[in-house]
Amino acid sequence: MSKKIPIGIVGASGYTGAELARIIHGHPDARTVFATAESQAGRSLRDLYPTAPDLRLRPTADAPLGEAEVVFLCLPHGAAAATAARALEAGCRVVDLSADFRLRDRATYETWYDTTHPAPALLSDAVYGLTELAREALPAARLVANPGCYPTSVILALAPLLRSDAKIVGPLISDSKSGVSGAGRTPSPTTHFVQVADNLSPYKVGRVHRHLPEMEQELTRLRADAPPLVFTPHLLPVARGMLSTIYATLDGGVDLDALRAHYQAAYAAEPFVQLLPAGTPATLAHAVHTNRCALSLFAAGDTLVITSAIDNLVKGAAGQAVQNMNVMLGLDETAGLSR
Amino acid sequence: MSKKIPIGIVGASGYTGAELARIIHGHPDARTVFATAESQAGRSLRDLYPTAPDLRLRPTADAPLGEAEVVFLCLPHGAAAATAARALEAGCRVVDLSADFRLRDRATYETWYDTTHPAPALLSDAVYGLTELAREALPAARLVANPGCYPTSVILALAPLLRSDAKIVGPLISDSKSGVSGAGRTPSPTTHFVQVADNLSPYKVGRVHRHLPEMEQELTRLRADAPPLVFTPHLLPVARGMLSTIYATLDGGVDLDALRAHYQAAYAAEPFVQLLPAGTPATLAHAVHTNRCALSLFAAGDTLVITSAIDNLVKGAAGQAVQNMNVMLGLDETAGLSR
Amino acid sequence: MSKKIPIGIVGASGYTGAELARIIHGHPDARTVFATAESQAGRSLRDLYPTAPDLRLRPTADAPLGEAEVVFLCLPHGAAAATAARALEAGCRVVDLSADFRLRDRATYETWYDTTHPAPALLSDAVYGLTELAREALPAARLVANPGCYPTSVILALAPLLRSDAKIVGPLISDSKSGVSGAGRTPSPTTHFVQVADNLSPYKVGRVHRHLPEMEQELTRLRADAPPLVFTPHLLPVARGMLSTIYATLDGGVDLDALRAHYQAAYAAEPFVQLLPAGTPATLAHAVHTNRCALSLFAAGDTLVITSAIDNLVKGAAGQAVQNMNVMLGLDETAGLSR
Amino acid sequence: MSKKIPIGIVGASGYTGAELARIIHGHPDARTVFATAESQAGRSLRDLYPTAPDLRLRPTADAPLGEAEVVFLCLPHGAAAATAARALEAGCRVVDLSADFRLRDRATYETWYDTTHPAPALLSDAVYGLTELAREALPAARLVANPGCYPTSVILALAPLLRSDAKIVGPLISDSKSGVSGAGRTPSPTTHFVQVADNLSPYKVGRVHRHLPEMEQELTRLRADAPPLVFTPHLLPVARGMLSTIYATLDGGVDLDALRAHYQAAYAAEPFVQLLPAGTPATLAHAVHTNRCALSLFAAGDTLVITSAIDNLVKGAAGQAVQNMNVMLGLDETAGLSR
Repeated sequence: MSKKIPIGIVGASGYTGAELARIIHGHPDARTVFATAESQAGRSLRDLYPTAPDLRLRPTADAPLGEAEVVFLCLPHGAAAATAARALEAGCRVVDLSADFRLRDRATYETWYDTTHPAPALLSDAVYGLTELAREALPAARLVANPGCYPTSVILALAPLLRSDAKIVGPLISDSKSGVSGAGRTPSPTTHFVQVADNLSPYKVGRVHRHLPEMEQELTRLRADAPPLVFTPHLLPVARGMLSTIYATLDGGVDLDALRAHYQAAYAAEPFVQLLPAGTPATLAHAVHTNRCALSLFAAGDTLVITSAIDNLVKGAAGQAVQNMNVMLGLDETAGLSR
Repeated sequence: MSKKIPIGIVGASGYTGAELARIIHGHPDARTVFATAESQAGRSLRDLYPTAPDLRLRPTADAPLGEAEVVFLCLPHGAAAATAARALEAGCRVVDLSADFRLRDRATYETWYDTTHPAPALLSDAVYGLTELAREALPAARLVANPGCYPTSVILALAPLLRSDAKIVGPLISDSKSGVSGAGRTPSPTTHFVQVADNLSPYKVGRVHRHLPEMEQELTRLRADAPPLVFTPHLLPVARGMLSTIYATLDGGVDLDALRAHYQAAYAAEPFVQLLPAGTPATLAHAVHTNRCALSLFAAGDTLVITSAIDNLVKGAAGQAVQNMNVMLGLDETAGLSR
Repeated sequence: MSKKIPIGIVGASGYTGAELARIIHGHPDARTVFATAESQAGRSLRDLYPTAPDLRLRPTADAPLGEAEVVFLCLPHGAAAATAARALEAGCRVVDLSADFRLRDRATYETWYDTTHPAPALLSDAVYGLTELAREALPAARLVANPGCYPTSVILALAPLLRSDAKIVGPLISDSKSGVSGAGRTPSPTTHFVQVADNLSPYKVGRVHRHLPEMEQELTRLRADAPPLVFTPHLLPVARGMLSTIYATLDGGVDLDALRAHYQAAYAAEPFVQLLPAGTPATLAHAVHTNRCALSLFAAGDTLVITSAIDNLVKGAAGQAVQNMNVMLGLDETAGLSR
Repeated sequence: MSKKIPIGIVGASGYTGAELARIIHGHPDARTVFATAESQAGRSLRDLYPTAPDLRLRPTADAPLGEAEVVFLCLPHGAAAATAARALEAGCRVVDLSADFRLRDRATYETWYDTTHPAPALLSDAVYGLTELAREALPAARLVANPGCYPTSVILALAPLLRSDAKIVGPLISDSKSGVSGAGRTPSPTTHFVQVADNLSPYKVGRVHRHLPEMEQELTRLRADAPPLVFTPHLLPVARGMLSTIYATLDGGVDLDALRAHYQAAYAAEPFVQLLPAGTPATLAHAVHTNRCALSLFAAGDTLVITSAIDNLVKGAAGQAVQNMNVMLGLDETAGLSR
C-alpha cells in the first residue's frame, strides 16, 4: 500500500471527481490520499454516490498538497488555476480537468471565458493532454491540461485525416451528442428529469460553445490550414456517453479503403482507440464505462462520415486524466482503466 | 354521426395505424368504419394499445372497401400497392403511408426496394403528399403517397432555402435522430429495451437508407441542381420524436436575418410549420404529440444550421396523412390535429 | 367564444398549472381568462412548455379574480389558502389543487404541514373532490379541495372494498410508484436526470408522507374502522404516471369473482374508472395522458392485490380538477378530458 | 496465466452469460477456457456486446468440458440439467444459473415448470447457492443451483427476520421491481423499447411466478412455519437493477432499533450485504454494477418495511455465481467482484 503513488483529488464531489475517485480506487499503483469539496466537505463521497469509495471530503483550503505526488483538479474554470499554482509550488504534478490551461492563447481564453486569466504565467508550461497526441510531452510535464469531452471525441476522429494528404473542401462539421452528466451535478432546469427525458435538445448552436476554440486550436496544430469547424452539441436523454458524427467533404472523393488503412495504421498501437470493423458504426454502447474512443469510417458520396464514441466521464474526463498520469509516471498506460 | 366521412384503416395494428385510429377517433368530421390487421385480426385495437379506440380488427381481405370514402394504408411497402389498386377500383380515395408510390421513377423504386414494383401503372397518379408543398394537387388527388418521416423533417427544413437564390457549396448534410417507434412494432434485437436504453446508434450510414432517394427526388424538384444529400440516421432512446440537424454551406456566407425573414414569409400561413424565435433551437419537445414541424435557423461561419423537429408518428406519418385528407376533402386543414 | 365559462389559473407555471392550461385550452365550454405565475410573470406559458397554449403569465397579485367564474389554485400549500379566500370573496368558485383544504381537521393539518392553517374558517366549506365519491356535494360546492395524486390512486382502488362486507385482516398496504413530474418543476438533486435515470428510489418510507393522513381520513369515511394504511412511495424514472400496488388480506380468503362483480357494479357508470379484464394488470400505459384510473384485481392466497394506475398530472391533479369543475357547473363530466 | 483456474461458460450469448464472461475476464484467479452459444456460435462475444471480452463462441455440443475446472451453465431451464450431468461426469464442478436444481422437490419442479425433471438423480447433490446462507456447504459442493434474482433480493432481506423471534402476522409481501435484462435477450413484444419506456408493468400477479415456490422453499428452511409469500413482480423501464419492497406485520409492533441491531449482527461479516444507515432507503443506485445487496429497515406502524436492492445480473445471477465459485475453491470471496 505505501508504495502506491499518492494522489490528491481537488473537487471530488462532482461527477468527474467522483469518477476519478472510483478509478483511482481500483488502480493497482495509486491511492487517494485526500479528496476535497466545498459545500459537501465533512461528508463521505459515498454519501453522495452510493457505490463510490468511502473517502472523507475535506475543504479544499485544507488539502495537504504536500502529501500528494499527483493532484487532479476537478474544479470549475477560473477556480482551478489558483489551486494549480499552489499545487505546483508544493511540488506536485498537476492534471487540471478544467479549461484553464487548454487554450494556449491568453486572449482567446479571456474572450471565450469572459474573465481575466487567473495564472497566465503557467500557460506556457501546460501540456494539452489528449494522450494519444501528447505522449512524448507527458513524461516531463508538470502541468497537464486535460481536454474537454467534445474535443476528445472530435480530435481523435479527425487527427489521422488532418495528418493525411486528403484535401478537405468546405468546413469540418461535428454533430455531437452528449449525456447529461456532461452538464454537471448542480441542479438546473436544463438537467431536470422531466425536461430531458423523451427529449433531444441542440444547444449553443453556431460558433458559441467554449469547446470550439479548443478544438480549432488543436485541429490547426494537426494541419496548419485546417478548415473551420462547425460544431453542434446536443443533449441526449442518457446519463453518460458522447457520440460525434463528423463530416468532411473531400476533393476527389472518399477512398474508404485507403482511409481505413491509414486510420488503422495511425491507431494500431493505441490501447484506447478502437477502429471498428468496416460497416459497424460506433455507438454509445461501444464506449460507455470504458476509456475507449470507438471510431468508424463511412463514405457518403464525396463526404467522409466518421462516428466517434466515448464515455464523457471516462475518456472525456477522468479516465483520460488517469491515462495521462500513467504516461507521466511511466506506468502501464492502461493501469486502472477499462477498454 | 352519419354525416361524418367514413374512413377505412388498413393495417391498424402497427404504431402508425394505431396513431391514425386515435386521430380519426378525435376528428370532428370523420369516423373509422373499418380497421384491419393480419395476425391481430379478431382483437380490439385497445387490446394492443390500452388508450386506443376500441375498434375491432378485421382481416384485410375482408375489408369492406366500398363503405369508406378515404382509405389509409399502413402496410409494409410492396403489400400496400395491391390494396391501393383495389381501393381505387372500389371508388375510394387512398392515402398510402408506405413507400410504394413515393418514388416517381419505377426503376429507382425497384433498385432501392429490391423488388418489382407491384403497381407501376398507378405511379403517375400519385401525389407526393408533403402537404405544405402539395396543397394545390391534393384536392383532385385520388392516390396520395404520404412522405416518410425523415423526408418530412428534411424537406420542410430545406424547401425555402432551395427556393431562394442562396448558392449552396458542397453537399447538404442531414444528421437525423429518430425515436424507436419509427422502427415499427415487430420485436427485433434492434428495438430491445436493453439495446436501446442508454444508447445512441447511427445506422445505415452512407448512401444506403431508403429515404435518401425520396429526399433527393423532392429536393431536386425544389431546385433542379440541388446538391446531393448526405444523410445519417440515428436511433435515439426515446419512443417517439425526430430531430434533423441540417447543414448547408453557403457561398458568400449566411445572412441569417434575411434567411429568417425568407423562411418566415414562406411559412407564415402554414398552421403546422413553426419557425422558432431567433436563438431557440427546435427540440423534440417542440413537436412530440403534435402535427408540428418546428424549425430554427443558425449561422456557424458560412454554414447555415437548421434544426427541424417533428413527431415521427404524427407529422411524420399519421398526422400528415390526416392533414392530407383534410385538404383533399376541403375540410379545415387543422381538423383533428394538434399544434 | 364569449359564452364559454371564464377560468382563472393561479400558479400556471408549474407542471400541474400547465397541464390545466392545456386541458382548458381544449375544453369545449371553458376558456382561460387569466393565468398567473411569480418568477415567470411576463412570459408566455409557451416559453416554458413549447406545446402549451400561448398564455401571458401575470403576477398573481394582479389576477383579475372578478373576471373568472372558476379559479384553479396551483400553488404550494400555505400559499393557496389566502388566495382561495380572496377568490371566494370575489364571487369565484374555487378548485384548490394544494393540500390546504384536504384535511378536515385543522390540528392534523398543522401537525403534518408544520404550520398554522392559513384559513381555518374555510375548512368546513371545502368539499374533498375525489369526483367519484363527491359527486353529490360538488354542484353546490364553492370550494373544492382537489385530492393528492397518491390518494386518488389509492382511494379509488379501495373504496368498493371498504364499502363491501369483506373483513380485512392487518393493515392495508400501498406500494406506490410515481413519475418525476409529481416532484414539481423546481430543480433539485432529487430530480436531476442523472440521479433519476436508471434508478428507482423509495422515499419517505414509514408513516411520514403528507398524503398518508389524507388517505387515512378518506378511508375512514368509507369504513369507520378501516385498518391503518402502510404507504411506501417510490420515484420512478418516468416523467409522468403513477401506479399503486395495493394489498389487503381478507379473513376467509379472496372470492375474486365476487369482488370483481362488486367493483364492476360500483364503477359501471363511471366514465373515468376502468376495471380491466380479469388477468390484465393495470400499467402506466393504461392511464398516461388520460383522466383514467385503471384498476385490476388479483388474488394471492388470502390477499387481494389491486393495481391502480393514473396519470399523476391528469386524474391525479389537473384532469380531476376539470372533472370537478364539470360536475360543479352541470357540464358533461367528460368535457375536455380524454379517457 | 496458466495458474489461473480454467472456467467454461455454457450459454455465453445471453445477458447473464455475457456478464459472467466480463467478470471472469477481470478475475485475478480465473480465466475462461471456453464459451458456448447456439445460434451465435462462430461469432465473438464482442460482436454481440461491444465491451465484452473477445471470446469466440463455440457450439455447446463441442464444449471441451474436460478442460474446465468449473463450468457455469447459463441455459434455459430444462436444457441446463443434461449439460450439468455431462460436465459432472467430465469431472467439472458446476454452477447452474438455471432453475433446474433450485427446487429440492421434483414434483414441485414438474408442476411449476410443466415438464419432466431432466435429471432428478442430481437433485440431492445440489446446493442452493445463496452464498450468505450456503457458505458451509459450498466448499464440498459439486453442483450449485444459483438462485433466481427475485429470490436473492427477497431471501437476504428476510433471513434475519425469520431467524429472529419476531412473530409475524399475516403473509409476507414482496412488491418487487426488475430491470428488463431480467427478461432475457430474446426480443418479444414485452421487451420492445416502445412498450417498456415510460411504463411500469406488474406481471404474473398472484401465485403464478416461478420464483415463488423457490422463495417459499427457502423461507421455510429459515423458519419452518414461515408465512406464505405474496409476491408481485413489476417490469421497470431500466436495463438492470432490482428492488424488492417487503412488508412484514409483527405482533407486538416493530422495535426498529433492535431489528437493525439484529440485522447488523447477522450481516456484519458479509462483504456483499450492506445494511444502510437508518433512514436511507436502498435504491437501485446502491447496487447496480456491483455484487451488493443493499438493505434498509423501516417501521410503518406495526409493519416492518424492508427495501432490498441488487443488480439482477450481478448479485442476482453472474456475480453470485462467481461468489459461489470463490467460496467453493477457497479463493478470496470478493475476488473479481465489486462492492
